[in-house]
Amino acid sequence: MSRSAEIIAVGTELLLGEIINTDGAYIASRLAEIGINAYYQTTVGDNPARLKEALEIAARRADIIITTGGLGPTFDDLTKETIASVFGKKLVRDQASLEHIRVFFEKRGREMTPNNIKQADLPEGAVIFKNLWGTAPACAFEAGNNIVVMLPGPPDECFPLTEKYVIPYLMRYSDGVLTSRYVRVYDVGESAVEDRLHDLMIESQNPTIAPYAKGGSVLVRITAKAEDRETGLRMCEPIVKQILAIYGRKSYEELEGGLPSLVFSLLKEQGKTFSTAESCTGGLVAKLMTDLPGVSDVFMGGVCTYSNQAKADILGIDPALIENNGAVSEPVARAMAENARRIYHTDIAVGITGIAGPGGGTEEKPVGLVYIACADESGTEVRKCTFGGTLKRTRDRIRTDAANAALDMVRKHLMN
Amino acid sequence: MSRSAEIIAVGTELLLGEIINTDGAYIASRLAEIGINAYYQTTVGDNPARLKEALEIAARRADIIITTGGLGPTFDDLTKETIASVFGKKLVRDQASLEHIRVFFEKRGREMTPNNIKQADLPEGAVIFKNLWGTAPACAFEAGNNIVVMLPGPPDECFPLTEKYVIPYLMRYSDGVLTSRYVRVYDVGESAVEDRLHDLMIESQNPTIAPYAKGGSVLVRITAKAEDRETGLRMCEPIVKQILAIYGRKSYEELEGGLPSLVFSLLKEQGKTFSTAESCTGGLVAKLMTDLPGVSDVFMGGVCTYSNQAKADILGIDPALIENNGAVSEPVARAMAENARRIYHTDIAVGITGIAGPGGGTEEKPVGLVYIACADESGTEVRKCTFGGTLKRTRDRIRTDAANAALDMVRKHLMN
Repeated sequence: MSRSAEIIAVGTELLLGEIINTDGAYIASRLAEIGINAYYQTTVGDNPARLKEALEIAARRADIIITTGGLGPTFDDLTKETIASVFGKKLVRDQASLEHIRVFFEKRGREMTPNNIKQADLPEGAVIFKNLWGTAPACAFEAGNNIVVMLPGPPDECFPLTEKYVIPYLMRYSDGVLTSRYVRVYDVGESAVEDRLHDLMIESQNPTIAPYAKGGSVLVRITAKAEDRETGLRMCEPIVKQILAIYGRKSYEELEGGLPSLVFSLLKEQGKTFSTAESCTGGLVAKLMTDLPGVSDVFMGGVCTYSNQAKADILGIDPALIENNGAVSEPVARAMAENARRIYHTDIAVGITGIAGPGGGTEEKPVGLVYIACADESGTEVRKCTFGGTLKRTRDRIRTDAANAALDMVRKHLMN
Repeated sequence: MSRSAEIIAVGTELLLGEIINTDGAYIASRLAEIGINAYYQTTVGDNPARLKEALEIAARRADIIITTGGLGPTFDDLTKETIASVFGKKLVRDQASLEHIRVFFEKRGREMTPNNIKQADLPEGAVIFKNLWGTAPACAFEAGNNIVVMLPGPPDECFPLTEKYVIPYLMRYSDGVLTSRYVRVYDVGESAVEDRLHDLMIESQNPTIAPYAKGGSVLVRITAKAEDRETGLRMCEPIVKQILAIYGRKSYEELEGGLPSLVFSLLKEQGKTFSTAESCTGGLVAKLMTDLPGVSDVFMGGVCTYSNQAKADILGIDPALIENNGAVSEPVARAMAENARRIYHTDIAVGITGIAGPGGGTEEKPVGLVYIACADESGTEVRKCTFGGTLKRTRDRIRTDAANAALDMVRKHLMN
């Protein structure tokens, strides 16, 4: 049987809400993939007594304990000392880690302080994971029935350390791999999806099926447990097909990396190029596309035109068109997409103009009103969206929904 | 004495790492501001037995228990039933909440299913908080020595409900307000900052002082406990001034909302306008600026030019300049900033070109190399940055660091 895990995040910054715990989600997702169930996550501050209590609870209810954070050089970072004492280990100085830290400071021309040296102290007998992304090494050790893994807190150290060392190390405790596939369903409510899929959800035990509301639509997760990823993906296939058949064009299979990745792979497959003209989303679609490595093959760029003058000067939109219809209007969205397509010489382009709020709304043009245009060789389609409807929506949510809706229009155009 | 709190996030999606727990950070930050210490956060799945255990542990070690999630309409959402049973409450149907849900479905032309109706069932005697942002109402009730607050999971419902109802409701349990101010210190390591500030940190108990590494620099938090925010801000003043005096131009006071907010307020104060030309950051600076409501007064927009042709056609950069120096070069960054300033008619503009990786690096131009130019009426400054140095850096981190470095150049230009 697979072992279970608890992830303990240590840091007063987390308790004060100054940092969001992205490490926990990342580690949990990687554990899930190797079939290790993390039933609990706990967050405590840099407080030895409370950390001790959390470790004792975790040692009782989980086999594997993974801590993140508290390995920094400052004197409130006491995680290591506390963990070592709870599990009856001495701390010993690791010379290779010390040398890595020394070189780090030398190359930067900074002085190594005594509290930096402390970072090279690790529990006796631990397997040490060299940190290529920072100074504090990670490590793992066994203590009684528990396996304890210690990781530094900064995500750009924690993520790659998890990937490179921790997951391979923990594979020995896995008895199978969980593989998920996702079907996105648009324009149908979460509970309606659940009602429709209810019998299928009850019948199918491996893979399991779980729908949930996400990003203004419903995501259905299909998860299989198998000896490897390939087999798992194959086991999900019939259910994925069944759900796609139920919802037709209101659904699609969502690939890892979500909608931007899907759009990227469709563009690549078809040898097409893409560009954007954004007003209320202010570069968010461009940002989402350029999050993806290698996207420069298909994404030529985008303009963010926040002012009317920029819409006229850079996109070449007739000022009279803006004057007569307003910047947030069907014709302006259309002109934005068509002109982005022209100036970037791309096969497809989107134009987005709307009112993200919280200010700027009127009765006629309320906060949440967004026009989205998608232009390709066959013409230009414009959608009028009212995000929120009777519900209030934050600026951030309206911008995210608008960016997703724009990418979804591109997807539909490419899939036609 | 102030009460302590524990935040319990409920959701299998959280344990699988499919969602990041942003609710926890947000609620924690708001609790901190009203002087309620959240010493623990726990995450459990949609599993009644484990949720029950987590609630029982929380009831022992915290006065106030705040749960997020598990209030959805699907049949795995059992949070409410479990909480009611642990605290010995019956669930009763709230007619006003039911009516709100009914109207929601009616306006959308969707059918209300029986599991939607379940969302209107709440613990007897609870204070009900109407959810203007979604269908599941929030609520609070007292049980023995505990105060229990239940919030829905989606952040765009949880955040405004917390702000509008939960914080005012919990104010009665607060005996003072914590107010923080922040000083950002650049080009100095975390442990060097701690060494330098060590005596001040020991001496000063209210306000307290805590430095930590964040976003490639060090953030020093100064936190005062006082009867109100105004007094707290005043109490921090001498320490803020002392730290700014120590680090001079390597430091500045960071306002809420971080660097983008500071740049926004400086631009507004000075009546200046700003635009961007981005290559490797692909619209990230524009996205960060347009996250801020009302920014259209000062931010005119930006171009993301991912291809050389777009750099030539849209920004009007001489193709020979790119040919001779490469797209990632000092002259191209300079030309990007100057041309962005010209085409957007702004007072100040930045140009960013670099290699975000993971591919595309060479020995001469490695991943992490970014040129950032800042142009204003006095001329153009270009910085060559090598993010990561001897350390590995992720694409995401390089893009974020580059965007922050660009905004910091704008800040320095405006503060001169």
